[in-house]
Parts: sequence; C-alpha cells; structure tokens
Amino acid sequence: MSESEDIATPLHELDSEQVEDRVHDEEDRLRPSFVREVLDAVADGDDEAARALVADLHPADIADLIELAPGDERADLIEALAGVVDADVYAELNDWVREDVIEEMEPQQVADLAAQLDTDDAVAMIEDLDDDDRRAVLRAMEPDDRAAVEEALSYPEESAGRLMQRELCAVPEHWKVGQVIDYLRSTAELPTDFWEVFVVGPTHHPVGTCKLSTILRTPRATLVSDIMAREQTLIPVDMDQEEVALKFQKYALISAAVVDHSDRLVGMITVDDIVHIIQEEAGEDVLLLSGAGEGDINEPIFDTYKARVRWLAANLLTALVATTVISQFESAIERLAILAALMPIVAGVGGNAGTQTLAVTVRAIATNQLTASNHWRAVWREIRVALLNGLTIAVLIGIGVTLVLGSGTLGAVIAAAMMTNILVAGLAGVLVPLGLERAGADPAVASSVFVTMVTDSMGFLVFLGLATVAGF
Amino acid sequence: MSESEDIATPLHELDSEQVEDRVHDEEDRLRPSFVREVLDAVADGDDEAARALVADLHPADIADLIELAPGDERADLIEALAGVVDADVYAELNDWVREDVIEEMEPQQVADLAAQLDTDDAVAMIEDLDDDDRRAVLRAMEPDDRAAVEEALSYPEESAGRLMQRELCAVPEHWKVGQVIDYLRSTAELPTDFWEVFVVGPTHHPVGTCKLSTILRTPRATLVSDIMAREQTLIPVDMDQEEVALKFQKYALISAAVVDHSDRLVGMITVDDIVHIIQEEAGEDVLLLSGAGEGDINEPIFDTYKARVRWLAANLLTALVATTVISQFESAIERLAILAALMPIVAGVGGNAGTQTLAVTVRAIATNQLTASNHWRAVWREIRVALLNGLTIAVLIGIGVTLVLGSGTLGAVIAAAMMTNILVAGLAGVLVPLGLERAGADPAVASSVFVTMVTDSMGFLVFLGLATVAGF
Repeated sequence: MSESEDIATPLHELDSEQVEDRVHDEEDRLRPSFVREVLDAVADGDDEAARALVADLHPADIADLIELAPGDERADLIEALAGVVDADVYAELNDWVREDVIEEMEPQQVADLAAQLDTDDAVAMIEDLDDDDRRAVLRAMEPDDRAAVEEALSYPEESAGRLMQRELCAVPEHWKVGQVIDYLRSTAELPTDFWEVFVVGPTHHPVGTCKLSTILRTPRATLVSDIMAREQTLIPVDMDQEEVALKFQKYALISAAVVDHSDRLVGMITVDDIVHIIQEEAGEDVLLLSGAGEGDINEPIFDTYKARVRWLAANLLTALVATTVISQFESAIERLAILAALMPIVAGVGGNAGTQTLAVTVRAIATNQLTASNHWRAVWREIRVALLNGLTIAVLIGIGVTLVLGSGTLGAVIAAAMMTNILVAGLAGVLVPLGLERAGADPAVASSVFVTMVTDSMGFLVFLGLATVAGF
Repeated sequence: MSESEDIATPLHELDSEQVEDRVHDEEDRLRPSFVREVLDAVADGDDEAARALVADLHPADIADLIELAPGDERADLIEALAGVVDADVYAELNDWVREDVIEEMEPQQVADLAAQLDTDDAVAMIEDLDDDDRRAVLRAMEPDDRAAVEEALSYPEESAGRLMQRELCAVPEHWKVGQVIDYLRSTAELPTDFWEVFVVGPTHHPVGTCKLSTILRTPRATLVSDIMAREQTLIPVDMDQEEVALKFQKYALISAAVVDHSDRLVGMITVDDIVHIIQEEAGEDVLLLSGAGEGDINEPIFDTYKARVRWLAANLLTALVATTVISQFESAIERLAILAALMPIVAGVGGNAGTQTLAVTVRAIATNQLTASNHWRAVWREIRVALLNGLTIAVLIGIGVTLVLGSGTLGAVIAAAMMTNILVAGLAGVLVPLGLERAGADPAVASSVFVTMVTDSMGFLVFLGLATVAGF
C-alpha cells in the first residue's frame, strides 16, 4: 500500500503517477480507499467532488467502481456521476449489474444510450431485458438503430449475429488504393475502430481483406484486388460464440467478416469483443465442473441458489449409491469399526485423482487439443499416469496402515483398494467426458457427478469387499 | 460426418467448400479421416501426396496435424512435409511437442527458423530448451537476432519482456501525418502486423498512440501530436503476463507499448499473442483447483505424475484428519453400522457445496471482480446461498432417512449435520481463497485441499457427534 492512500491531497495537485497510485493498486484494481472516497463524497451530497475523482477514469474503471459499490448505493452513485457515466460505461458493466441499473431507467433513456453504441454493445445492453421492457426500448429508438438491433436479436443468443457490429468498412474489388483512402477520409459513417478493410464482390460477398497497414504502405494507383489477402476466415452469422472465439484464437484474427446464409457480408466481429468471450468460455469449465452454474458474484441470490441446489441434489442421489454399497457391509463394520474410519481415504483420494483427470480432459476437449484422432492415446496416457500415482499412494497408505494399526493384511487390503480406485478414477475421468462429448453433450456439465459417484462407490466397494474377503 | 470422408477424390478436383469439408469438421477440428490420410501417405513413402494434402492449410492447422499425429510418427511426418512446415508452424506448435521436435534438430536449423520469426515467437521457441542447447542455438544466430532474443531471455519467464516483439513502428511527435505515411511506405523493417503507430518523445519515451485508421483518415499536413491519443496503457517490461492479459481485456487493447525501467519504449505486445494467455490463465484455474499441474495432454508422463502425485499425497494427509475424527466414534459405529453408511453423504454433499463456492470465488478473484472493496459482501452472499441450499438438502435427506430407516431422530440428526456442513462449506469455500489471496498466494493452488479437509472432517464430526449426543 502506498502512502498516498492516507493523504487526502486533492487529485489535481498530484502528478499523474501519484494519481494512478491513489486510484489503482499494483494489480490494476481500484483501491478500496479510493472506492470509499468516492462513495463518501456521494453520501455527503458532494456530487462535484465525486465527479472530479472519477472524471479521468477509463469507462472500464468507472464500470468497476459501480460494480464494487454496494447494491443500495449504486443508484445514488450513478445519479451523482451524471455526465460521467456514459454509454461506454454501461457497455462495460457486468450484465447483472447493468440489468439492475437499467431496469430503473425510462425506455427513452436506455434507447438514447444504445444509440451511442455500436450494434454489438447496444444488443448486449438490451437483450437481457424483459420482453415488455425490450419492446418499449426498441419503440423509443430511431428506426435505423432499431432495425439493426432487431435484426441482431433475431439471431440465436451467444451467436455471431449478436456479437457482430453492422458498422464496417467494405470496398469493391475494382477500386484502387487511392480510392479507398479517399473514401475513408470522406466517409463519416465508419466504425469507431477498424483494422481491416473488407473487399467485396458485386453481390456484396467477401472476396478478401486488406489490413490498414498494407493500404498505408501501398502506392495509390495499385488495385485493392492485387494486395488483398484472399484467404480469410468467414464467420457464419449463426455460429456459436465459443467457436467464433476458437477461430479468432487459432488464426490470430484481429477482425473477421460475418456472412449470412447467402454468403453476403453482413457484419464484422473485432477481437476486443472476443477476448471477453475467450475468458468467459475458458473460465466457465471450473464453474460447470463444480456445479456452480454461471457463477457470477453479481447474480441474484435466488438464481444462484437454483443453479447450485440442482447439483447438490444430484450429488445427494449419487451419494445414496455409495451409502447402499456401504450398507451391504454393515456386519463387517460392526465387527471392526476401523474399516469405517479408513474407507473415506480410499474414496477421497480416488475422487481427487478422478477430478485431476477430468479437469485435464475437459480443458483439452474445450481447446480442440483432444479429438477423435488422439482420444485412445489420451486414455492410454491416463492409464499410465494412474498406474504411477496408484502405486505411489498405495505403497504410502499400505505401509502407514500396517505400521499404525499393526496389521499387514489390513495394510495390503487398503493398498490394493487404493491402487484399484485410482486406476478406476483415471479411466472414469477421461472416459466420462469423452463419452459425453461423443454424445453431443458439454463434457464439463455433468462429468463431475458421474465421476464422483464412480470413485466413491468403487472406493467403498473394493475396500470393504477386499476386507471381507480377507476375513475381517 | 460428411460423405466426402469416404471418397478418396484428389483434393484438387474438389471445390473449396468440399475441400474444407473434407479437412475440418463443423467445429473446425481436423477430421480423423484427414489426419489418417496424411499419415498413411507418409507411411507409404508418398511424401508428395502428403505435401499436396496439407499445402493449402493454415500454419495453425499444420501444427494441429503434427500434434494429433502419434509421437512416433511425428518425425517422419515433419520430414515428409519439408518446405511446408515452416517457422510459423513451429510458432503455433504446442510447447511440449515443439520441444520434442526441436531437440532432434541441429542448432543451426533452429537458429534459421527463429530468424524468420518476430522476437516473441523466436523466444517462445528457444526459451524451453536445455541450457546447453539454448546456448548452441544462440551461437548459431545472426548477431542482431541473437541480441534481441538474449535481451528478451533476460526478463523473467511469463513477463511482458518475453511476450513483446521488438519490431514496432515509432515516430517522433513533431512529424506530420504525411511524413508518417512516407516513412511507412519507404521502410522495410516494420513488424509483420501492426495496428497502431507509437508516438515517442526525444528520449524515446511514449507520449501517445495513433491508430492506423486515424492516420488514414487525416490530411497529410496535420501534426501527429494533434491526432494521437495521449491516454495509453503502458506495459512495464517485467509485468506478469496474467496482468498484461487483464489489461488488454479491461481496456480493449489491440496493441500496447512496453517500456523499460527508464520509461523508454522497448517493444510492443499485440492482442493476437494475448488471446492465448487469456485462455491459458482462465483455463488454468480448473487445473490448479483439481491439483492437475499444467494439465497439458502433451506433457511427458513423468512430469504429469510428479505434478499430480504431490496433491494426491496432500489429499492423503488431509484424509487422515477425517479418519482420526471418525475413529473417535468407533463405539457408536460398532453399535449402529448404518451411521458409517450415512456419514459419507454429509461429507460428500458438503464437499460439493464447498467446491461450488470455491470455483466462483477463485474466478471472481482472478478476474478482479472480487477485491477488498466487496469481499465482506461476497462472504455474506455465500452465507445466504448456503442457508438456502442447506435448508433444501437438509429437508430432503432428513425426510428420506426418517422414511427409509423409520427413525425421526436419525433423520433430524442427519438433517442438522447436513445444514451445518453446507454452511461450513460455504464459509470455507469463500474464506480460504480470500485468505490465500490476502497472504499473497495463488488462491487456486491449495484451496481445494483445505476446503475438502474442512468439509470432510466437519461432516463426519457433526454427524457422528450429534448421533452420539442423540444417544445412538
């Protein structure tokens, strides 16, 4: 923490580095002291002080500030920051927080904000509203903007059609570079940011792309068609956003043309909109595997409850399978209660081994590293890792139990059970997600419950079964 | 699956859509049949056929092909594809596979490949080699390239200095737009791709950036300093790649200037190199939480074993805590073995509830959504969710046990234990990662082991303890 946090010097008396230090911590998060300072100014009714504090912040930081403010202070904060909280800030806000904030606004206000944004951001702002609210906002929009947003909303959720912006720069292939430059200089209606010019044929279908750096470096008399890249990645308008993200990543795209079913150019997706998707989709696996639904800390409590309790209930059912297994061995446990104390070790470590394999397999499938070409190799790989892990852990627990409880037979039983269960865990951890993927399901969604059921039940069955066979 | 898979029509007789369909599946993965076709051609010694099949593929696809080939067929494949497998393909290869392949090459070959790449890709290719091999490759490089790579290697692993390319476009602030355009047209030594021009002051420190679209759209006589954006995100050369990735995402950057300790411009990072990092870092949490280390399916078996067995051994130790707890209740279990059959339900569902909270908390910390400003709110949120979940699951299991086993007291005991354990799980799931983060550790790394220990031990303790108190 820096000293400047404790000194209330007005921001305008600090140099830019000191301001930065007072606002952000080393990891670029807003400092709690800064958040508090702004909220205190708002609570004191000193809107001007609050506005002065945030005036120079990036829209993404103002959005963070609103998210970090307690729910019941957000409305006052936004009111105090009128003029500073613009459309870009709303575009940066977390979906849940934005929904909350927008629900309190008049349709005309929302329509005015949406009008200032590119189509993709306007759609993101409007798509989660209730049907009635959405219709009211759309009615309040200008016909052009409205048509653009309505068209985007006609595509499936999480599809390229929702992500794309209609604003783009397209030129005919018979133009010369000079014409392109003159067109760019004279046309006001271009996207806020663009990095490539799309070259289109007579029916407005894409025939190539031309990076701005190439245009800048080419003499004016050259034909665009002579310098454009003919190989380009076209995104069908109904492609799922996860696939769009994988394409951007695989082919290192900065922007890509979106085409409709007749191969006509209808929009553009830029990489800055995709980095959020890449992060979401990659981070989603840990939430899905744990059964935590969307797992957003801004999600309403009751939605979170509904998402999670389903998986806890599923877990309860699979736990009953393990209970049924154990209850078959009640007489052995009555004779030797230490069996009951040892059995969770076999189930627990097996469960952990299964989760390890599961995590690796799910990520490899999600990143297209694991396909039908190499799935048997992956299974064989997990078997070998499981044999090594199983051997190590079995020896450790076998020796430990033998020494502590003074029974070599019990040591051998738990070692054998451990070895078996870790092998079963490895197989389940790789086969369950591959099977779900093959069946067309998302391997991250239900794998965990299956694998845990297998490792629990097998752990108890093999350990108690072997103990019974060994005469305990 | 498409019909074309079974028809061995030569590729050149197919139109581009048919070729695409034969090579890729709907999710843009190489079809197993195509991979097999290429490998069969190589096995038959028909290198020309193999080259013809892959000639039009993107380097990223050729890299995928090499990764999908079994380890013992890769060397032959690469040899057969000589001339097609170029430096860009090596840059796209998975780290482990590339290391394997490069180890077999002469230092001069590696040096020649590296010379064709931008600094960042050259460094990625060389950094993982053994010290001896790396020195040999560096000695074989041209002095200029060598100096660039050696400087990059002097920065910490996974830092901005390793990610950046030294090739960039910088212009002095007193230049006019026309001068910039003439410079771009006349200079050969520019990066392969660039999207912004960096504007620098007299000591080569960045003073602003200028998007190529802005340059294209501005009259030649305008001063660069009049149109440049003065606000820019500067990346210190030793910043960790995860923070770099968060900055790119937060501020929607396409490229950013990297500065040394004296604030001089030393390199540029572009977003296409960052999307990989974003995906890796976001996907890493699920691997870390499960204790699966790097979790790459191309990692050597023994490395995977070492990474995973550590966590299994840790899990073994924490399982012993649960075992100790249970062994305190041996007499109760001997009297009523059904207790042993029921206790894993309380521990297991509690463990799942803990994992859910853990996953959400770890992701929220990783994406800077959860900071010191709102951590108590997050804890309070988890308590409320846990109360709802606990109540639901406790009622379900309480009624179930009462009906099936005909004991209302046992039903009440397990319901109370379940409620308590889910609440404990929720608290542990949010407090453990927050505590680790506060202590400066990565919350994803060790959280799972702690939380599982807590939910297991508490589950057994509360259930068996209450059962004993209730007189069972």
